[in-house]
Amino acid sequence: MSFEISEELIERHNRRLKPALDRGWAGFERELKRRGTNPQRLFLAARPFVVAVPSWGLAAGGTRFGRFPFPGEPRHLYEKLDDAATLHRLTRQNPTVSLHIPWDQTGNPAALRAYARQLGLSFDAMNSNTFQDQPGQKLSYKFGSLCHTDPAVRGQAVAHNLEVIEIGKKLGSRALSIWIGDGGNYPGQVHFRRAFDRYLESLEQIYAGLPRGWRLYLEHKPYEPAFYFTVNADWGASYLAASALGPKALCLVDLGHHLPGTNVEAVVARLIRQKKLGGFHFNDAQYGDDDLSAGSINPYRLFLVMNELQDAAQDPAVKNFHPAFLLDQSMNLKDPIEDLIQSTEALFRAFSKALLVNRPALHRCQEKNDPVMAEQILKQAFETDVTPLVQRVRFSNGGAIDPLALFRQSGYRPAKIKERG
Amino acid sequence: MSFEISEELIERHNRRLKPALDRGWAGFERELKRRGTNPQRLFLAARPFVVAVPSWGLAAGGTRFGRFPFPGEPRHLYEKLDDAATLHRLTRQNPTVSLHIPWDQTGNPAALRAYARQLGLSFDAMNSNTFQDQPGQKLSYKFGSLCHTDPAVRGQAVAHNLEVIEIGKKLGSRALSIWIGDGGNYPGQVHFRRAFDRYLESLEQIYAGLPRGWRLYLEHKPYEPAFYFTVNADWGASYLAASALGPKALCLVDLGHHLPGTNVEAVVARLIRQKKLGGFHFNDAQYGDDDLSAGSINPYRLFLVMNELQDAAQDPAVKNFHPAFLLDQSMNLKDPIEDLIQSTEALFRAFSKALLVNRPALHRCQEKNDPVMAEQILKQAFETDVTPLVQRVRFSNGGAIDPLALFRQSGYRPAKIKERG
Amino acid sequence: MSFEISEELIERHNRRLKPALDRGWAGFERELKRRGTNPQRLFLAARPFVVAVPSWGLAAGGTRFGRFPFPGEPRHLYEKLDDAATLHRLTRQNPTVSLHIPWDQTGNPAALRAYARQLGLSFDAMNSNTFQDQPGQKLSYKFGSLCHTDPAVRGQAVAHNLEVIEIGKKLGSRALSIWIGDGGNYPGQVHFRRAFDRYLESLEQIYAGLPRGWRLYLEHKPYEPAFYFTVNADWGASYLAASALGPKALCLVDLGHHLPGTNVEAVVARLIRQKKLGGFHFNDAQYGDDDLSAGSINPYRLFLVMNELQDAAQDPAVKNFHPAFLLDQSMNLKDPIEDLIQSTEALFRAFSKALLVNRPALHRCQEKNDPVMAEQILKQAFETDVTPLVQRVRFSNGGAIDPLALFRQSGYRPAKIKERG
Amino acid sequence: MSFEISEELIERHNRRLKPALDRGWAGFERELKRRGTNPQRLFLAARPFVVAVPSWGLAAGGTRFGRFPFPGEPRHLYEKLDDAATLHRLTRQNPTVSLHIPWDQTGNPAALRAYARQLGLSFDAMNSNTFQDQPGQKLSYKFGSLCHTDPAVRGQAVAHNLEVIEIGKKLGSRALSIWIGDGGNYPGQVHFRRAFDRYLESLEQIYAGLPRGWRLYLEHKPYEPAFYFTVNADWGASYLAASALGPKALCLVDLGHHLPGTNVEAVVARLIRQKKLGGFHFNDAQYGDDDLSAGSINPYRLFLVMNELQDAAQDPAVKNFHPAFLLDQSMNLKDPIEDLIQSTEALFRAFSKALLVNRPALHRCQEKNDPVMAEQILKQAFETDVTPLVQRVRFSNGGAIDPLALFRQSGYRPAKIKERG
Repeated sequence: MSFEISEELIERHNRRLKPALDRGWAGFERELKRRGTNPQRLFLAARPFVVAVPSWGLAAGGTRFGRFPFPGEPRHLYEKLDDAATLHRLTRQNPTVSLHIPWDQTGNPAALRAYARQLGLSFDAMNSNTFQDQPGQKLSYKFGSLCHTDPAVRGQAVAHNLEVIEIGKKLGSRALSIWIGDGGNYPGQVHFRRAFDRYLESLEQIYAGLPRGWRLYLEHKPYEPAFYFTVNADWGASYLAASALGPKALCLVDLGHHLPGTNVEAVVARLIRQKKLGGFHFNDAQYGDDDLSAGSINPYRLFLVMNELQDAAQDPAVKNFHPAFLLDQSMNLKDPIEDLIQSTEALFRAFSKALLVNRPALHRCQEKNDPVMAEQILKQAFETDVTPLVQRVRFSNGGAIDPLALFRQSGYRPAKIKERG
Repeated sequence: MSFEISEELIERHNRRLKPALDRGWAGFERELKRRGTNPQRLFLAARPFVVAVPSWGLAAGGTRFGRFPFPGEPRHLYEKLDDAATLHRLTRQNPTVSLHIPWDQTGNPAALRAYARQLGLSFDAMNSNTFQDQPGQKLSYKFGSLCHTDPAVRGQAVAHNLEVIEIGKKLGSRALSIWIGDGGNYPGQVHFRRAFDRYLESLEQIYAGLPRGWRLYLEHKPYEPAFYFTVNADWGASYLAASALGPKALCLVDLGHHLPGTNVEAVVARLIRQKKLGGFHFNDAQYGDDDLSAGSINPYRLFLVMNELQDAAQDPAVKNFHPAFLLDQSMNLKDPIEDLIQSTEALFRAFSKALLVNRPALHRCQEKNDPVMAEQILKQAFETDVTPLVQRVRFSNGGAIDPLALFRQSGYRPAKIKERG
Repeated sequence: MSFEISEELIERHNRRLKPALDRGWAGFERELKRRGTNPQRLFLAARPFVVAVPSWGLAAGGTRFGRFPFPGEPRHLYEKLDDAATLHRLTRQNPTVSLHIPWDQTGNPAALRAYARQLGLSFDAMNSNTFQDQPGQKLSYKFGSLCHTDPAVRGQAVAHNLEVIEIGKKLGSRALSIWIGDGGNYPGQVHFRRAFDRYLESLEQIYAGLPRGWRLYLEHKPYEPAFYFTVNADWGASYLAASALGPKALCLVDLGHHLPGTNVEAVVARLIRQKKLGGFHFNDAQYGDDDLSAGSINPYRLFLVMNELQDAAQDPAVKNFHPAFLLDQSMNLKDPIEDLIQSTEALFRAFSKALLVNRPALHRCQEKNDPVMAEQILKQAFETDVTPLVQRVRFSNGGAIDPLALFRQSGYRPAKIKERG
Repeated sequence: MSFEISEELIERHNRRLKPALDRGWAGFERELKRRGTNPQRLFLAARPFVVAVPSWGLAAGGTRFGRFPFPGEPRHLYEKLDDAATLHRLTRQNPTVSLHIPWDQTGNPAALRAYARQLGLSFDAMNSNTFQDQPGQKLSYKFGSLCHTDPAVRGQAVAHNLEVIEIGKKLGSRALSIWIGDGGNYPGQVHFRRAFDRYLESLEQIYAGLPRGWRLYLEHKPYEPAFYFTVNADWGASYLAASALGPKALCLVDLGHHLPGTNVEAVVARLIRQKKLGGFHFNDAQYGDDDLSAGSINPYRLFLVMNELQDAAQDPAVKNFHPAFLLDQSMNLKDPIEDLIQSTEALFRAFSKALLVNRPALHRCQEKNDPVMAEQILKQAFETDVTPLVQRVRFSNGGAIDPLALFRQSGYRPAKIKERG
């Protein structure tokens, strides 16, 4: 990549903002101590937070009514990695990229991996795509892929997933995420029970091809692109499938993939209890799968999800708990890098606030049925302004204290407009 | 009961309407033959249809904003049985009554059973109640029952369920339905995972007390009376519980207990596939758990649910498939007997239309992904006016050809107003 | 167009099915007379029913996850008109086509109009498009069109609408439908009140350009493509705008453009009462704006909408009541011609059943608060199998008795695959 | 009232917490100055904030499945006023009480008013009740009240409202809030257009009886207690009615009275634009009209509503803008006084944060379509921990720095349990 946000630029930026951060942190520290919280322990607990970014989230997304491209958009995967590296340089919280095959033309995986490594990036979960037809594809997914009535179509879809695993192995990935659109638009179109049988049968073949150390994430969604019936429509169906497959198969929760009113944090807790929570696609929504920036519509819900994760992380009875985090959003109007900076920060704020929850006190309130004080405990954590913590972690990790401001000042996008045309 | 709708009255009514019914049936028979359907076979398949009525559905229901009682309402369980017997005399499709303890004061069960038998009625599934406090109750269910943090409250709730089983045994019932309101109104109030642990632990004690030949039905509901979190909120949670318990535990689907947009017929199919569909609480809804008359808002959805049941019933791979049917509605504005006549007929229409579906042809369309013709097959069945079949079955079973009209003409309710005050 | 479904083919088809239709009609006639309904009057009332088809509904639609084209799809507007003509030849209920500019490249409007006339078609309402950017467009609609903060963008959008009117005038259209996606994805992005001010200001300029005898339809939608705020989000906003403009501005109701639970028929009644109901975009939905075939998910709702229209049509107090009908659906999986045949029939069934409602009796039940009998009256009409009426009207209009079957047998699509490649 | 939370107790409590508050405020002041905000001006702008409490919110609420009373609950209106006074003594932000007739037996209004005045309270908007039948009531509201088909029932409902105005005049109230449940449960039951005609006709009679200086608030709600159709179902219907009546009639927005997904803050903005926003019933909801504590489910939404109000309050083009605030919640599980302390604080936090919004900068971002920075401005305000401001305002008004803690320590409820039994 030609134009870069240099380390030096970041240092200069930080030098300017550091005094204010120090003052902010001092106040924050005092406040935490007043509450009996150890600030340094909080800092250490918060510091490792990271979240993956999706390659498809680095260019403009769109709706069925169109897509508004923007100048300076990356034109191919290498340029997307450039942008991801820029993001990570600013935040130090986005070290991995999740690819989507065949949207991402990986070409020579070894070269790609080397390029990423040089940028300080590595590869997160791989995503297969059998919800669209690709030019030259032999059989169509119009009426389904892993659940299609025709074994040849299912076979093609299984083979694609196995191929994605192969690419992933070469890239150093350790997981495959499967989201399918299989379902139907009209009553009568699909035989519900048989479609699920076929789903399991296809998944078993993919599961059998999982390399040692890999995980398989199954992602449910109630509707869209199918508007009447969806095979993996809810956590219950996803759980049935993951259980049938074995311990490497886990459920993936996309925050926007639920019907109106769903208590998503309770869904998360159910999957944790069943040892089947694999990870998250983070975003926010007002209506359906709106794919808005994480925390942009209901930041308290995001906090409550993080609260469940902390509850599990601190529960000795919950073993091997390492849910994967990915920002899966549609950048329809915002510059993707800016959106990802905002969203990473929103997640990190929610994560930090969940660390602030006085968990023993909360459990006592729960045991004695004191909803007022239980809520106060959550609200006190949520209402805390964690800006000093957020900035200090970023700074100490080598990122920018105010990455959004620095990104704008840096002239990165204008430079890319020139470079990329 | 003093005033009754006599057999003689029904006969007179039927005599008057029989010629029109015969003409209607003749036309219906011709139409079926034209389509290649055997009318007599259809008649025989439809004839055994029955649906239970709930004791609580024989008096006026209400909302949290009040209840409008109506004159001539039954004052106690014996009068409710009188009304249920009247209903059954008219429809011949409501031979069983489902009780709700302690709403129903059963007093001497043997006497009650004898009274019911004399009216031609018997007892369906028993319903326990741990979502309300009763006068004189030792511990409150304000903060839960089977899932309460206090083992003493859980013990009380378990004991109540075991007592309901005892009553049920004496009444000849064979099933216990459990719906609990356990959950919470505020984030933080309830620890999601532990609440489910306690739910299972309590259910295990009840399950252990199930007599031979009994079934345990678990009913899920997304919200109300708890408005933030509900322990058994969806089919997935219900399935987890029923699976943990054993083969006698099954899931009960109330059509109104789903979030907006839920494809209920697909939920039904999932539970069938998992061998965990126990039965139904039928009603209809526009918004939430509105408890309106079955088929009053979306009769096509009711048909699609029945279509799944017929699909399973005709599938040799589905064994021991005998889902229980109960009309669970809230009679806020209609005379309950009239509502139950309407609702029984709406169910029976949907059931009959599901029998009309050309299932082999439907399966062929599904296999070859022909949504247009698959839909046509369902629509042809749904658009058929099954009035002649509905009336002929009722007539041949000894009921009234037009039970609603006869009920109004009979003067039953005015007589009850005098008797009951 | 080369291959056509000839009059002769239709006649042969009808000759074969006529005897069965006659038998069906005779039975239907008997049944109506039994109920006191005049079959001939019903036939005459039903006969004029027509519904427009959208040019964009003649090719495959899609979702944001892709579009599955199908072989034999029309490649341009003239081929779309060929398909529309084929549809109309079969149904005789789709004489008009609604264009969408600039999706439809009208080229020489006079030639286009002549071509359509020769096919027996004319042009319905014109649709403008300011929710997408077109190649070569000067200013982008990414952040709005008629409501954009930049007056130059608003001016461009207004000019486009005026240009669409000009094209429409040449084509013989008499109405302009405006649907905009203007709104925002994030809190803070748009100033709600000012955006509405700008909407009105732009509409006023378009309204001023309406030719004599034209109508302006404003279409509301709660969300998509904007996922947080939409300027014309509901009937209330649409009504405010239509009232501010004047008598030629009316509201257009798309059945899928409402939040979950909305009682759409009540919305229709409100707009009728305010003299502002202009017309409909018909389709059906389970979740959001799913754009499924009309009547495919909830045919009773469709009937209830038609019931409101008949109630108004038969009410002497409602003047100048001529709502426009358009099928606005997304043909993602079905052959569009087949979908439109199904949807036209679903609409016509609902329309016919609404004619069957015993309106004086219904009004009496409403006056005396008898919900049971009011519902029986609606249900009796809805449960009537109007197939004989539907077929007889089509036959007497010169269409096919079973247009779907004939379309399949005709080999139309295979011929088009050859012709269109 | 016997046991009271004395001024002295509050002073002692404050003395203990004052040093920490001072430290907190100093930090808050520094932070505001850093941002260029004048802390004293903010303090003065926040200080007048008040919100009314409903008499019915001082006792336990319930659902249709029951009500869990709690010990120490007020037994009548005078005890409710005692509790309201206690609340206000702690918060100094709840000086007014809203009555509900006939739930509240006002007896001798002059004596009541004197009692309230002595407690430092006065009376907010009056609420009439025609959605329930009262013992001894002549005609039933089962099938409606202001919209009933029978003019005698409408007359009774109008007379009740006029009587409520009379009581209100004696109590010093200045507004009447009307919420009716009128509507229907089943298609066909109600004639939509005529029901609205009758609604307007009845409202006109009430409007004519409004004393000088009074306001009439019309409250919409999509469903419950009517589950199919509601006469005043949405802001559009409410606006039509308020417009038809005249300038004293305004719309009242209950945050929970909207369909899933509704952008409530945009509804608020629309009503402001139309000069018809009268006030609010504050509460929060996850599903339907859940009546949970304000800000307990989505505090960001509450902030966004307050943001619209501040936008209007600071807009010179918006005249006479004094929306009324009432906490309308159902205290099913929490002690009502604790709930009201929490809810008042949640509202005040949202109000304070809305004051913090850099409005000129926000408007600039809106004008130039910069959603990223517009969101940042809102988020910066929302993420600010306003605890020091909240506490300082309360303290300076004479309330308790931590009213919830003090309430618990005070032994108020235990004392009331003894007094009230």
